[in-house]
Amino acid sequence: MATTEANQSTAILLIHCPDKPGLIALVTDFINANGGNIIYLDQHVDRTEGVFFMRVEWELENFVIPRDKINEYFGTLYGQKYDMDFRLYFSDDTPRMAIFVSKMSHCIYDLLARYIAGEWNVAIPVIISNHPDLQTVAARFGIEFHCIPITKETKAEQEALEVELLKKHQVDFIVLARYMQVVSANFIKQYPNRIINIHHSFLPAFVGAKPYHAAFERGVKLIGATSHYVTSDLDAGPIIEQDIARISHKDTVKTLIHKGQDLEKIVLSRAVEKHIERKVLTYKNKTVLFN
Amino acid sequence: MATTEANQSTAILLIHCPDKPGLIALVTDFINANGGNIIYLDQHVDRTEGVFFMRVEWELENFVIPRDKINEYFGTLYGQKYDMDFRLYFSDDTPRMAIFVSKMSHCIYDLLARYIAGEWNVAIPVIISNHPDLQTVAARFGIEFHCIPITKETKAEQEALEVELLKKHQVDFIVLARYMQVVSANFIKQYPNRIINIHHSFLPAFVGAKPYHAAFERGVKLIGATSHYVTSDLDAGPIIEQDIARISHKDTVKTLIHKGQDLEKIVLSRAVEKHIERKVLTYKNKTVLFN
Amino acid sequence: MATTEANQSTAILLIHCPDKPGLIALVTDFINANGGNIIYLDQHVDRTEGVFFMRVEWELENFVIPRDKINEYFGTLYGQKYDMDFRLYFSDDTPRMAIFVSKMSHCIYDLLARYIAGEWNVAIPVIISNHPDLQTVAARFGIEFHCIPITKETKAEQEALEVELLKKHQVDFIVLARYMQVVSANFIKQYPNRIINIHHSFLPAFVGAKPYHAAFERGVKLIGATSHYVTSDLDAGPIIEQDIARISHKDTVKTLIHKGQDLEKIVLSRAVEKHIERKVLTYKNKTVLFN
Amino acid sequence: MATTEANQSTAILLIHCPDKPGLIALVTDFINANGGNIIYLDQHVDRTEGVFFMRVEWELENFVIPRDKINEYFGTLYGQKYDMDFRLYFSDDTPRMAIFVSKMSHCIYDLLARYIAGEWNVAIPVIISNHPDLQTVAARFGIEFHCIPITKETKAEQEALEVELLKKHQVDFIVLARYMQVVSANFIKQYPNRIINIHHSFLPAFVGAKPYHAAFERGVKLIGATSHYVTSDLDAGPIIEQDIARISHKDTVKTLIHKGQDLEKIVLSRAVEKHIERKVLTYKNKTVLFN
Repeated sequence: MATTEANQSTAILLIHCPDKPGLIALVTDFINANGGNIIYLDQHVDRTEGVFFMRVEWELENFVIPRDKINEYFGTLYGQKYDMDFRLYFSDDTPRMAIFVSKMSHCIYDLLARYIAGEWNVAIPVIISNHPDLQTVAARFGIEFHCIPITKETKAEQEALEVELLKKHQVDFIVLARYMQVVSANFIKQYPNRIINIHHSFLPAFVGAKPYHAAFERGVKLIGATSHYVTSDLDAGPIIEQDIARISHKDTVKTLIHKGQDLEKIVLSRAVEKHIERKVLTYKNKTVLFN
Repeated sequence: MATTEANQSTAILLIHCPDKPGLIALVTDFINANGGNIIYLDQHVDRTEGVFFMRVEWELENFVIPRDKINEYFGTLYGQKYDMDFRLYFSDDTPRMAIFVSKMSHCIYDLLARYIAGEWNVAIPVIISNHPDLQTVAARFGIEFHCIPITKETKAEQEALEVELLKKHQVDFIVLARYMQVVSANFIKQYPNRIINIHHSFLPAFVGAKPYHAAFERGVKLIGATSHYVTSDLDAGPIIEQDIARISHKDTVKTLIHKGQDLEKIVLSRAVEKHIERKVLTYKNKTVLFN
Repeated sequence: MATTEANQSTAILLIHCPDKPGLIALVTDFINANGGNIIYLDQHVDRTEGVFFMRVEWELENFVIPRDKINEYFGTLYGQKYDMDFRLYFSDDTPRMAIFVSKMSHCIYDLLARYIAGEWNVAIPVIISNHPDLQTVAARFGIEFHCIPITKETKAEQEALEVELLKKHQVDFIVLARYMQVVSANFIKQYPNRIINIHHSFLPAFVGAKPYHAAFERGVKLIGATSHYVTSDLDAGPIIEQDIARISHKDTVKTLIHKGQDLEKIVLSRAVEKHIERKVLTYKNKTVLFN
Repeated sequence: MATTEANQSTAILLIHCPDKPGLIALVTDFINANGGNIIYLDQHVDRTEGVFFMRVEWELENFVIPRDKINEYFGTLYGQKYDMDFRLYFSDDTPRMAIFVSKMSHCIYDLLARYIAGEWNVAIPVIISNHPDLQTVAARFGIEFHCIPITKETKAEQEALEVELLKKHQVDFIVLARYMQVVSANFIKQYPNRIINIHHSFLPAFVGAKPYHAAFERGVKLIGATSHYVTSDLDAGPIIEQDIARISHKDTVKTLIHKGQDLEKIVLSRAVEKHIERKVLTYKNKTVLFN
């Protein structure tokens, strides 16, 4: 979903820094005074931590600072002075996303259907799997597919192969669409807050393998799904999105798995969309989601 | 989702009739006494109307009445006597479904992904559209596609063409996956309670065209989607499934349409699944949904 | 829920005006430059209508403009110039709320329990009813109760009596907690956007009397509740909050009414809370809800 | 919510036993053959465990077995033979419920408002608290209140006092309405599956103290509440009901606690209602909820 109705290019600035009076005025002045037309502004102050978060987006057409100088100018004029952690994006820079899968197809179909229908401003150059099963899905949509099986022994070298592929395709971020493999800390380090996973439980309940079996055992009345950025702590990274579905004593593990699939794909796609739209800021193992 | 864990064939009996004491005992006795092993039983009594509803499913392996005689036997022994409206299905008879679409692809992708992944016991021999746009989607999944444009003038003859196609493919039921055409009463008559539509509002609010525009105008805080059987009353047929999503003053018509698509596809697929599993009974413009 | 953790007084400014660049900067500058510490800021731009909405709250302790002059200063310096529709509140001015009821007690108990527990910054000096039934409820909580029966013939004079009572108790806004009487246009005119009603359906579905009966007749799978400001159009005023509950074919009108009561009280209380916190802005029959 | 529209007395039978063909027929035959009119029947078969569950309710008017003999007759004729665990209730036997509280009033107000309004077929003879704070609430509704403070040292003797009170008031089951005390195993043993607790998280996430603080720390996007029967395993007893509310990065621990209160009271009341209606069966640390 484009955040602007117009077709023209916009700049997007994501900022977090120690809170101070006047920060919004400062940033909006910078944009207005230089001819930018703000079309989106959302901000949040975490008063406990004393941290200011902001997302602002403006049209570039009459902006006097050249596009490739904005980052430098903003950093020099404000960034250092206010101890800002900021990132600049342009709406016409299409982010490049890789999908990792194993054998289940419900999430990848949902992602690819949105991609092909043009719902998202994203490119998907490559799909990687540790199993050959979903090659046909990739083929259906004409996307390059690589089967890279992984064992404990081969993990390091196979992940090196994966990184090579990701680099070759200039991948910005990775979506683990029910990829049934723990990714190594070394791999994660290369894509900090840029690997999105879907876990099939309402975390922090039912961390790890077989959450539907665990949910069935415990007799819960709700099942959930959680999308989060992957960190080296298993299933403990910053949560982007969660949702639940109501179940009953009539459900078996099999029907939980079936019902859960609808949750998983929707929750994952919502998180991916937020990431593509640059509406997620990560801070201290939590996310700020602009809407 | 198969209703039995086993692979063997089952019979499914859907009944409604005037309520009387002992109806469950009667039906379960019939099955048990003849060697059938009941694996599913759900019943409902509408005490206002005095109507009894039942769905029962049993394994055929040791059932002494031959499969092709069950209907006759049950009708003779009980059906007439108790004024039962009953239908018999077999789990290994795969229902045949046609999809009607126009230009939007989100619902059809969701249906086809489930179909291809083997989620449902269904065959999809043909896709019909009044526009050529989604031919590529059909092609991706290797399904026969027919573009049958419709104008006021050509409606009767084009619908005749459609019916011919449906007959040729022995289609049991039809899914209107955002098919932007009102189907004629004559067409509907040939598929009573066998045409499933998805309407993009929580009916009965916002009947007719452009419900998201109407929702935006009214300033509602929730949007919805409704799947229902098509009757000759526009958007007024028996409701199978509904769901909603929360929205806010920040939403535009464009974002409502976008958010609504996730609702539409999930709500439609839930209804189609219930229909495939023969878990929907229709009575007086309402549905009884067995779970 | 207080919007500030501190106990000190704050000023709250609600603004809407034609959108222009620099409006946020302007308002925040006004506050910052005069020694105010902003503790809440939320804004929204309706790009279709070209309207800017803002809620800002700041601590008064070091604010150099005297409290009773802020309205005048802000109006003179910005309000007229930018064609602003603005309202100023102070957190230590406790709004005064009247409750109108008929015979059902679920909503009024929920409101009074929150009031007595100190959940809300509100005073409830008076309860008015067209029936005597809930006098005992008022007595339980020690609140003045008036039974003012209304017939078609007596409506005008009885409403005049009500207004007199409301004036005497300096009531700021009115909550219709399942008050089963249509309020006259003349009465409404005296409390524009200050009468909150709870309607027991997801409006605009099932406007008017007996919505649960209508929902049952239609065979919906969800029931809803809607809180809205009362206007002279029946059940058509600006919606503040809505929610739904899932029902099934097993529900009767009686169980719908029962399940709906939980919805009604929660949806009404959420709306009342937003109003008390001055987080609702009304514009063109819609609401902007700050969070 | 009465389970029968009529005012006459009904018998309710809750059964679980090893699954066998013909169990429904057997039980319904027993009732029909002896002149009982069945007004409710729901059953469930756990096919993994091979266990049959049933709830059946019938009108006593023309039932030939005397009310006080039904238990004996059913046990003799079927109970022993089919290894049934069964319990018999009568709709005109009003269950007696005690409420345990500490300092927070939102749950107890919700329970008492329903009780006073006659929503439930229940008697509430006594409220017990480890703090004096809510005495006024009890007084408002004219219910006997006992403040029984508990320390580690006095726990055994104080609980003995509580049990004495419960016995004196012939209490059938206990509702812990945010009672901030761990109940001893010895106490629980005397009310097996008859103590209902509300825990302020979606269990099994955030077991133990301060779940909202833990939820805030973890950065979840949903908070929950869980009502369950108390067992000697802390927060690990059979779950009766759960629900969730959506939160965001804007929430603080304080707003989580506030939003959670609405969840807690509704989730607790739903569980209490199911218990009062004898619609909960407990089996192997899970519940079967008839609807």
